Amino acid sequence: MKSPSDSLTEMVQFVLPNDANPLGFMLGGSVMHLIDIAGAVAASRHARMPLVTAAVDDLQFLHPIRVGDLIVLRAWVNATFTTSMEVEVEVQSEETLTGRRTLTSRAYLTFVTVGPDGRPAPVPPLRIETEEERQRAEAARLRRAARLARRKAEAGSVS
Amino acid sequence: MKSPSDSLTEMVQFVLPNDANPLGFMLGGSVMHLIDIAGAVAASRHARMPLVTAAVDDLQFLHPIRVGDLIVLRAWVNATFTTSMEVEVEVQSEETLTGRRTLTSRAYLTFVTVGPDGRPAPVPPLRIETEEERQRAEAARLRRAARLARRKAEAGSVS
Amino acid sequence: MKSPSDSLTEMVQFVLPNDANPLGFMLGGSVMHLIDIAGAVAASRHARMPLVTAAVDDLQFLHPIRVGDLIVLRAWVNATFTTSMEVEVEVQSEETLTGRRTLTSRAYLTFVTVGPDGRPAPVPPLRIETEEERQRAEAARLRRAARLARRKAEAGSVS
Amino acid sequence: MKSPSDSLTEMVQFVLPNDANPLGFMLGGSVMHLIDIAGAVAASRHARMPLVTAAVDDLQFLHPIRVGDLIVLRAWVNATFTTSMEVEVEVQSEETLTGRRTLTSRAYLTFVTVGPDGRPAPVPPLRIETEEERQRAEAARLRRAARLARRKAEAGSVS
Amino acid sequence: MKSPSDSLTEMVQFVLPNDANPLGFMLGGSVMHLIDIAGAVAASRHARMPLVTAAVDDLQFLHPIRVGDLIVLRAWVNATFTTSMEVEVEVQSEETLTGRRTLTSRAYLTFVTVGPDGRPAPVPPLRIETEEERQRAEAARLRRAARLARRKAEAGSVS
Amino acid sequence: MKSPSDSLTEMVQFVLPNDANPLGFMLGGSVMHLIDIAGAVAASRHARMPLVTAAVDDLQFLHPIRVGDLIVLRAWVNATFTTSMEVEVEVQSEETLTGRRTLTSRAYLTFVTVGPDGRPAPVPPLRIETEEERQRAEAARLRRAARLARRKAEAGSVS
Repeated sequence: MKSPSDSLTEMVQFVLPNDANPLGFMLGGSVMHLIDIAGAVAASRHARMPLVTAAVDDLQFLHPIRVGDLIVLRAWVNATFTTSMEVEVEVQSEETLTGRRTLTSRAYLTFVTVGPDGRPAPVPPLRIETEEERQRAEAARLRRAARLARRKAEAGSVS
Repeated sequence: MKSPSDSLTEMVQFVLPNDANPLGFMLGGSVMHLIDIAGAVAASRHARMPLVTAAVDDLQFLHPIRVGDLIVLRAWVNATFTTSMEVEVEVQSEETLTGRRTLTSRAYLTFVTVGPDGRPAPVPPLRIETEEERQRAEAARLRRAARLARRKAEAGSVS
Repeated sequence: MKSPSDSLTEMVQFVLPNDANPLGFMLGGSVMHLIDIAGAVAASRHARMPLVTAAVDDLQFLHPIRVGDLIVLRAWVNATFTTSMEVEVEVQSEETLTGRRTLTSRAYLTFVTVGPDGRPAPVPPLRIETEEERQRAEAARLRRAARLARRKAEAGSVS
Repeated sequence: MKSPSDSLTEMVQFVLPNDANPLGFMLGGSVMHLIDIAGAVAASRHARMPLVTAAVDDLQFLHPIRVGDLIVLRAWVNATFTTSMEVEVEVQSEETLTGRRTLTSRAYLTFVTVGPDGRPAPVPPLRIETEEERQRAEAARLRRAARLARRKAEAGSVS
Repeated sequence: MKSPSDSLTEMVQFVLPNDANPLGFMLGGSVMHLIDIAGAVAASRHARMPLVTAAVDDLQFLHPIRVGDLIVLRAWVNATFTTSMEVEVEVQSEETLTGRRTLTSRAYLTFVTVGPDGRPAPVPPLRIETEEERQRAEAARLRRAARLARRKAEAGSVS
Repeated sequence: MKSPSDSLTEMVQFVLPNDANPLGFMLGGSVMHLIDIAGAVAASRHARMPLVTAAVDDLQFLHPIRVGDLIVLRAWVNATFTTSMEVEVEVQSEETLTGRRTLTSRAYLTFVTVGPDGRPAPVPPLRIETEEERQRAEAARLRRAARLARRKAEAGSVS
């Protein structure tokens, strides 16, 4: 059984001109693209099964990232559910010439594992060991309950 | 003064092999990338000012989009606030050989307008005319209040 | 039977640094790339069959498009022939900060539909309803006759 | 004074999955993109000045090019005019496993040279030496006359 | 003064269709591209100065990496010289569905730091602490001597 | 039987903003990417078989290449061995506005041909005709012996 640290993934990229707007700031969409890739690597390392992104929680871009600087992403699995898991992705900018790191976004993504029949399939369970891991898993469960409640509310407001 | 329909933006793209996972499904990150671009075009058409993506609400991927099919995005401004605005982006897949359209995601993005000094600057107000526009603007205001409440709660839980 | 408006396609893109020459003007080749995609989407929406680009008429670039501005493309089917159809693509630049639109190019593309045997296959006919549609279809037929005459002339000049 | 062979440019590329449609054929738009780049290199080698693509003549795609095969482009200047020049681009496919070459397109592009003031500037003249070069230059002049006549006719039909 | 571990960089990427040949194996050139980026991030983290790649030692591709699998790169500074430093990059493939890791390449790159005048500038020295670091630095010095000797030999064989 | 000139390959590309670092110099990794493609085209033209890059010798970047300039690559087969061949790739920068060419790198790549069973397969022999070709083939054989000796030494130092 794998622990959250078994899925730990680190990615780093230089921000290139095509990823930026005319102000020289990295596009939100380019950041989101990398968040999804980092999250998918972590989810994949936990499940070792084909998977798809099912949801992304509320996302904020707290600070701009500049062309020529680095974007650093760290991702890991917080909790597993029946056929899905929550992955947390932490995004930091790193100024190339000073090394100064700034937290840019913290994202929570839900990935669903897919079986050979193309349908959701059971996710291997997560081994929780430390107190910090236990707290993260608990917070993930609360976020999931809130997500399901929001969806129910939306469905209700539509009908 | 511009109405929501003045910012209406339609984008369409073929889903290419590099945008897809080995199952042949479009990557969540590639979808998010296009959502941000469509949203930024709509925001830009309303404000005609430099801007940055500040936040993306809860996002679900309801159905996979396949390589070779089309992704169709429609975006418009729902409401303006002091130095920000909410843009709604509707994402549909369109099967190339049948034309069948399926709603894939509905996204709410917040863009902040940036002045010559690099700081948030006033957004031109939105002219609301129809009942539907009024309801959308009202829903945007409620989502904004919920967003601010969530952030306050997060800040609280940190301290 | 579908009308020209059933194939109507709108695409919009920010012009990125990699699409531009050192003068900051969008490369002709990048414009042509998008013209072909917009045209292929419209042709695909009419025929709902696999297809290939067979020809592009004489193309002019009337005005440069700058990095950071928008390129807006609209495409629709003008006329169908036995196993091919003519698609018109209108290209405009849109200045991000002013909204000023300028016609950049007007392109006429011929797409051939491909059957399961990999050979040209019949295109579904087009329903012409308005006087404007009738004129466009007639102009498409004249352009096609001119195209075939030019090819005959070229073939003649070769032998 | 430079001759046409001084601008001779050869480019070759593997056709990658992202350049192809679901039939595995290279997209017309990707071919056009490379045609413009090859033409711009040749024009640039003649003029050694900033330049923009002004027009592309009638273009046919005679044969499909498959993913994994090579696209081979050759470009050279045919004739110079006051502030513009005609470049010919020959496109061939080359089957990777057999070496079989097939002519896919022959394109005629017009490039305009740009001076420090951003306006069209004189193109250095072309030294014509061989009989073949003389014939190409003469054909280029005829195509230019036809182009100008077509534009006049279009302008006339509009008014 | 920074130690080698201060420059430690980890990157991971899914191998996409456009990075692969028709056999489904990642192109050597795509691997080299990532090796240079990972190396440049590590060099940049040590020096915090603009820099350019000056040389890459002998590189072998021991095992193919397949589309859909992961490429994992780790890079760190081995030794610093007057205006240059040696960075080691270790490349592994990671099978997405099994987690099996295989060493694919081990690369040694030389980066030169660039001062405000555009010329080579002094590199901050490296703090060597552990016995392993000392051995790596010593091996880097031997590789550098061999590199300089090879270049001298090449220069000699030319004259 | 083919001679080295039968595999001769020429490629040229404008250096685009995304290929460059913030100093405006082409990234070493982007140069290596093109070296591998040019080499693979030459190797493919000789062997007309599927192949993979097995090794790249010591590579130097003698001069920077600037955004907006051209990178020109020439590649050809120097010598064939049992299931591999050595390809030489010469890289030059060409200043767009002056035409000045500068040798940037000279690379030696080893490609292995792959049979239908996915294993190394015999390479067609090379016809050596001129004295220059004979010298190149001889130098390739010496480089190969040196490569094998280096690998033996590395393996030895590991055990």
